[in-house]
Amino acid sequence: MKYSLRTPARLVLAAGLALACAQSAPSVQDPLPSWNDTGPKKAIIAFVEKVTKEGSPDFVPVPERIATFDNDGTLWAEKPVPFQLLFAVEQVKQLAPQHPEWKTKEPFASLLKGDLARVAATGEKGLMEIVTATHAGMTTDEFSRSVQEWIASAKHPKTGRLLTATVYQPMLELLAYLRAKGFKTFIVSGGGVEFMRPWTERVYGIPPEQVVGSAGKLKLETRDGKPVLVKLPAIDFIDDKEGKPIGIQSRIGRRPIAAFGNSDGDLQMLQWAMAGEGARFALFVHHDDSQREYSYDRADRLQQFDKGWDEAIAQGWTVVSMKDDWNTVFPTADR
Amino acid sequence: MKYSLRTPARLVLAAGLALACAQSAPSVQDPLPSWNDTGPKKAIIAFVEKVTKEGSPDFVPVPERIATFDNDGTLWAEKPVPFQLLFAVEQVKQLAPQHPEWKTKEPFASLLKGDLARVAATGEKGLMEIVTATHAGMTTDEFSRSVQEWIASAKHPKTGRLLTATVYQPMLELLAYLRAKGFKTFIVSGGGVEFMRPWTERVYGIPPEQVVGSAGKLKLETRDGKPVLVKLPAIDFIDDKEGKPIGIQSRIGRRPIAAFGNSDGDLQMLQWAMAGEGARFALFVHHDDSQREYSYDRADRLQQFDKGWDEAIAQGWTVVSMKDDWNTVFPTADR
Repeated sequence: MKYSLRTPARLVLAAGLALACAQSAPSVQDPLPSWNDTGPKKAIIAFVEKVTKEGSPDFVPVPERIATFDNDGTLWAEKPVPFQLLFAVEQVKQLAPQHPEWKTKEPFASLLKGDLARVAATGEKGLMEIVTATHAGMTTDEFSRSVQEWIASAKHPKTGRLLTATVYQPMLELLAYLRAKGFKTFIVSGGGVEFMRPWTERVYGIPPEQVVGSAGKLKLETRDGKPVLVKLPAIDFIDDKEGKPIGIQSRIGRRPIAAFGNSDGDLQMLQWAMAGEGARFALFVHHDDSQREYSYDRADRLQQFDKGWDEAIAQGWTVVSMKDDWNTVFPTADR
Repeated sequence: MKYSLRTPARLVLAAGLALACAQSAPSVQDPLPSWNDTGPKKAIIAFVEKVTKEGSPDFVPVPERIATFDNDGTLWAEKPVPFQLLFAVEQVKQLAPQHPEWKTKEPFASLLKGDLARVAATGEKGLMEIVTATHAGMTTDEFSRSVQEWIASAKHPKTGRLLTATVYQPMLELLAYLRAKGFKTFIVSGGGVEFMRPWTERVYGIPPEQVVGSAGKLKLETRDGKPVLVKLPAIDFIDDKEGKPIGIQSRIGRRPIAAFGNSDGDLQMLQWAMAGEGARFALFVHHDDSQREYSYDRADRLQQFDKGWDEAIAQGWTVVSMKDDWNTVFPTADR
C-alpha cells in the first residue's frame, strides 16, 4: 500500500489495522487444546512450523502441503463395528424380502442373524460387497440422500450419541490447524466414498472432492429424460492397504507430506508419504483408552494395529496414546 | 470489528481501508480481454454474476462452484493430432527395438509407419493402449519426469511453438476469472491423467488433484527398499463420453454447475452439468478458425462436433465461434 497520512491519523490507522490483524491471528491461542503437552502434540507443531516457515530448509510451498487422513478409527470411532456396516444392516433388512437367497449367502446370512462381528471380519471387501449389492440400481443421487437421511439420526450403539458426534475432537482441531497453516486435508479411507461424501464437509470441513474411498462401478443411464449415474453390483476400487497409495496417486496425484492412520490398513499410506523427499510426518492413533473409547491393537481381528506399530517404533513415527495424549476424546456438542 | 475512533481518525481509517480494498478489486478491469463483446462473453459474465451475487435467487455457495473443462481442443489445441500422441510416438520409437511384434500389431504398426491419423482414429482407447504398453514397468515418478522433460521442449508440428504455448489465451482468462469468483476449476479430459498432471499447475493454474483423466492400472511394489507405484499394461478408466460423468462423480463427487468442451466426447459431461438443479452453464468451443487455428466439426473423424452441436442448438447452450468471438487465440509469450 502506498499512501501517506499525517499523524495522528497515521498512527490510528496503523493501530486499527493491527487490531484487525490480531483478531484473525490464531498464533497466540493454543491450536490443539484437546491435546496434552506430550510428545505427539510437540511433534505435530514442530513439523508444521518447520515446513511452513519461509526460508527454513524444510519449507514446503502451499500447493504441496497435502495431508491425508484415514477415517474409521482415525477421525471417528470404528467400534463396535465400522459405522458403514450399521448403515448396510438397515439397507439389507429393508431389501431382504426381495432377496430370499441372502438367507444362506454370506456375508448377508451372518448380517441377517445379527452376527456383525463375523460380517465385519470380511473386511472392507465384504463391506463393499454388501453395499454394492444392496444399492445396485439406485442412482448416486438417491444413495446420497439415503445416507444423509440415515446419518441425521443414526446413533452409536454403546454411547447413544449421534455417530457424527463420535468424531475425535483432537483430530478436528488438527484438521483445522493444518488448514490454517495452508494444508489441504484429504480423507483416504477404506470406507465407501459415496457413504462419506454426503457429510464430511459438514462434520470435518473436508469437501467431497477431497474424499478418496472404496467405490462401486457406475453406469450412465437416462431416466425420465435426464442422465443419471446408476450404482452397479460390482466393486471398482478398494481403498485399503496397498490400495491407499494407489488411491492417492489416481485421485490426488500428489504425494502427501503428512499422513494419519490408526491400523495396519493405513501402513502403506504412511510408508508412501514418508518415502517422499523433504520433511515428512506420519502418525498413528493408538486406541488404548477403554474408559473413554475402546482399547484394541495387536490382537484385534478387524482393525489390527500390529505391523504398523512395529514400523512406527522402528522408524520413529509418532504414535498417539489416546489415553495419555488426549485430554478430550469427543466433542461436547453434537455435530 | 468493534472499536470506535473519533473523527477525523475514523474517516481516515475508513478511507484507508476503502483504498486497500479498491486495490484488490478487479471489477473495473475487463476480466476477459481476449473475448470480443459478443454473445458468449456476455453469457459467461451474466452467469457468473448471477450465481455469485449474494441474495440473488440463483446464488451458489462457494464450495458448490465447480467448473469442469475438457483439455484437448478446449484448453489447448488438439490438431493435427492430440499432443499426447506425439509423446507416445517418441516413446514407441525408443522402445521399438525391444518389441519386434509392434511391426505388425496395431496401433503400433501404423504409428511406426508414421500414419498418425490412423492411430488417432483408434480414439482415447487406442491412445491409452499405446501409453500403457510403452510405460508398463515404469514407476509413476519416472513417468512424471519423462513427461516433464519432454514437454519442456516439445513443439507444435505446424507452428513450431512450444506445445504449452498452444493453450488458448481466452480460456486462460476464463479460468482465472472463474477462480477469482470463487470457482474451483477442474480438468476432466479423455487424455491420460498422468500425462497432464506434471504441467497443468504451471500452465493453467490447475493443481494435480483437480485433474481427472484416463488412467492405467497401478501396482504397489518395493524397489531399493522404497515403495513405488508401477504402471501396469492395463487400462483402468477411460474418461471420455459417458466416462466423463463417471469420472466427475468418482473423482470429484460433486456435480459441476458449469462445463466446457469442444466435441461430442464432452457432450455427456455438459448434459450431466446441466441436469442439476439451479443455475447452470454449458459451453462448446467451435473450431471454425482455419486462419489462426483449425477448422473442423461435423465431418471430423477424430474430434467430431456434431451431436454436441445439435444439442447445444436445441438447448440454447453457448457455442463459441473461435473466429468471431475470440480476438486472440494463443498467448504471445511462451509458458
